[in-house]
Amino acid sequence: MDDYAGVDSSIAAQMPRWTAELIEFCSIPSEGGDRDALRTAQLWVSARLERLGCSVEVIGVDGAPSLVVAEIGDGPTVTCVQHYDVQPAAPLDLWLSPPYEPAVRDGRLIARGAEDNKGEFLARVWGLEAYLAAFGRLPCRVRFLVEGEEELGSPHLAGYLDRRPELRVADGALMEGGGVDDEGRPIVQCGIRGMLVAELAVRTIAHDAHSSFAALLPNAAIRMSQAIASLFDAEGRPSFDGLLDGIVPPTPEQIALVDALPDQLADSLLHAFEIERFVAGRKGSAAKRAAILEPTCNVSGLWSGYIAPGIMTITPAEAHARIDIRLVPDQDPDSVLVRLREHLESHGFGDVAVKTRNWGTRAYWSPSDAPIVLSAVRAAESVWGKRPSILVTDPGTAPMWDVCAEHGVAQADFGAATPASRAHAPNENIRLDHAEKVARTMVRFLDQVAASVRLTPS
Amino acid sequence: MDDYAGVDSSIAAQMPRWTAELIEFCSIPSEGGDRDALRTAQLWVSARLERLGCSVEVIGVDGAPSLVVAEIGDGPTVTCVQHYDVQPAAPLDLWLSPPYEPAVRDGRLIARGAEDNKGEFLARVWGLEAYLAAFGRLPCRVRFLVEGEEELGSPHLAGYLDRRPELRVADGALMEGGGVDDEGRPIVQCGIRGMLVAELAVRTIAHDAHSSFAALLPNAAIRMSQAIASLFDAEGRPSFDGLLDGIVPPTPEQIALVDALPDQLADSLLHAFEIERFVAGRKGSAAKRAAILEPTCNVSGLWSGYIAPGIMTITPAEAHARIDIRLVPDQDPDSVLVRLREHLESHGFGDVAVKTRNWGTRAYWSPSDAPIVLSAVRAAESVWGKRPSILVTDPGTAPMWDVCAEHGVAQADFGAATPASRAHAPNENIRLDHAEKVARTMVRFLDQVAASVRLTPS
Repeated sequence: MDDYAGVDSSIAAQMPRWTAELIEFCSIPSEGGDRDALRTAQLWVSARLERLGCSVEVIGVDGAPSLVVAEIGDGPTVTCVQHYDVQPAAPLDLWLSPPYEPAVRDGRLIARGAEDNKGEFLARVWGLEAYLAAFGRLPCRVRFLVEGEEELGSPHLAGYLDRRPELRVADGALMEGGGVDDEGRPIVQCGIRGMLVAELAVRTIAHDAHSSFAALLPNAAIRMSQAIASLFDAEGRPSFDGLLDGIVPPTPEQIALVDALPDQLADSLLHAFEIERFVAGRKGSAAKRAAILEPTCNVSGLWSGYIAPGIMTITPAEAHARIDIRLVPDQDPDSVLVRLREHLESHGFGDVAVKTRNWGTRAYWSPSDAPIVLSAVRAAESVWGKRPSILVTDPGTAPMWDVCAEHGVAQADFGAATPASRAHAPNENIRLDHAEKVARTMVRFLDQVAASVRLTPS
Repeated sequence: MDDYAGVDSSIAAQMPRWTAELIEFCSIPSEGGDRDALRTAQLWVSARLERLGCSVEVIGVDGAPSLVVAEIGDGPTVTCVQHYDVQPAAPLDLWLSPPYEPAVRDGRLIARGAEDNKGEFLARVWGLEAYLAAFGRLPCRVRFLVEGEEELGSPHLAGYLDRRPELRVADGALMEGGGVDDEGRPIVQCGIRGMLVAELAVRTIAHDAHSSFAALLPNAAIRMSQAIASLFDAEGRPSFDGLLDGIVPPTPEQIALVDALPDQLADSLLHAFEIERFVAGRKGSAAKRAAILEPTCNVSGLWSGYIAPGIMTITPAEAHARIDIRLVPDQDPDSVLVRLREHLESHGFGDVAVKTRNWGTRAYWSPSDAPIVLSAVRAAESVWGKRPSILVTDPGTAPMWDVCAEHGVAQADFGAATPASRAHAPNENIRLDHAEKVARTMVRFLDQVAASVRLTPS
């Protein structure tokens, strides 16, 4: 890992061409539910990985986006878990340029998926391409698992892997992306939270009513508001019965890692979201611990009655809400769903139906001293010139449990995201200089893995 | 009022022609906000009333639908307060036929506005036309005030009348419509509730966030749910501080009138809305008193976050709700608005903004023994063959305070609606046999007014 000057300059030289490639990939509106666009994106990924030199295979079932499996190289195996689907681009009116007409401004490529996950995925591919160009062959085996349902909670991934159990055997795994803080300090994460997505629905009357009968007819919007309110304390913290069941308390080492994070990591959110204080006034260690070590309960959507412009004085018959609950080890999504139903029932909301569509994913946290983590830390430090922060877990969710848990494969990540990347939000973007650094990190990471990782039961 | 056989049979003979006329009127999609359609509807009303023989005048201001003022006849004056705007037709997918392509099925004309208020308005016009055809001239003066903003709370009507104060001088007024119960017993109402429409809005963060930060970033959907929940008790009854301020308790006579109503009037709602029980388990007198004598607080719309199909795991930055509060004497809408704001503030929801657009209307209740009420009762009884129920107030809202309060003009109503008419809901309809009976009632009502009403300060 002494001298990467040559490969670094070849990466720099390729960036214009690679940027054009990322623009092409981001032009595909591969939102969940858009079968045609998802198929186009899947074919694009397969072709790109074949062009890199991978052996490529596609695993699918009728009616669901397929999983692209690609492998290249020999030696210790690292699985890169990526996805080609993107979050919906809504609300469209907040985008400064159309989400699927990628624009480059101030060194950023702006498009839905630019960061999550098309940019992070391609930057790793670029690193491999540069490594191959410079050194002829990879020092280890890289396996890509690129799915098309990550933003829906990966409902088919475990089933695909069950059909090909050898794909779960690896020496380490890279989560889909990663990032750096506002000061350019890389963040290496060694865990991921799980998630349960549920839809709440209540119907109080057979059809909407003229609101003059409001004293008699139960109102679905009020009912749903009360049901949601019952799940939180006055400060907005989730407080429903049983949410914390089954949680393994973090280790002293994990708590120490969280406390050691710069306060600025959390505080940058205050600035980004223009607020004075966090939920419940959390600050410092309390804010960092809450953000990383606790489960969440979030309402992502809520609707009832007449919501178009103007006035319609009705008592709504129906109300709906969507909830996502981020899980920590060893919460079981199915059990949390049962607890949620029980809470509503015991608080008098037995009429509120709770549905899910198998959007349950368990958390998966690896030891922070695993070789794969240390490889990522060293590679990132070499490129960014700063000692990385180690995060016990990404606050988000990815299907790492499905990929890694069976054989206890450890995981890490590195990537290009910053607090200004706006993943899942309008004007999502990736800094192109950061993408270039990810490619450079990937080159170094491969050598680190080859030197230090050998975990596969052989 | 001895023998109306001749005029009744001429009304029956005209019904096919008049039905075609109602179909034409209901084909105009005069929803609030559709300026072109509202203008078309206003011109239609003016032409129709000119054809009846009225002197017609239009009062307007730039940018708002105009008020059609029409007068015909001499003698004691009755003001008919009608409107040509309609509620939005949403949700469209629940209509069995398109809302502005009126269909006749099973003796009902189905269209948005068929009952509220185009059908009720035209049935009265038909009665006048039949009276004129049979007897040459009306026995009293009828004044129509037909506005185009009733469903928005009549924001300009008072201003229009302030410019022409003599339009408020009358011997009695007819509210926009009325109805019969499931057993064909007419209902004559002598009051109207007021209404305040307010919009609640809260913004917790500058823009939507990835929901993985939910432990730190305040969620607008949760916040709004909690704010709404704070306005109601566990049973869904409005409980916010100060809602009952300024209410004049109903008189023993008014309470007796309510208690005397058939329980079936309320119970028919259980059937229509397919529910087992009313809010808070109200039954019998408790249900009738609540429905008629108490103010309401209704949430008509609620929205936050991502509400399209699919999943988007965001923490919403904004949440919105619309509330309508039905008022009883002598609640002042402005004071209720202040109380609502104070309640939210004192319960920790000072961040929830409360806006209104002058949608405040006061309640207006007349004595049940006023000559105009007795005229309506006798006319309706003569046609329907059953003693009418007298309602202290219509549970709904109309701008009768603006029209009648200054000179203490008493009001009544009669009409064609039944619990199956679905005013404000999909598949709104009017029974054509009921519309015919309204025309016949109007004929008798004119004679009753001429014989008994003489209240105008002369």
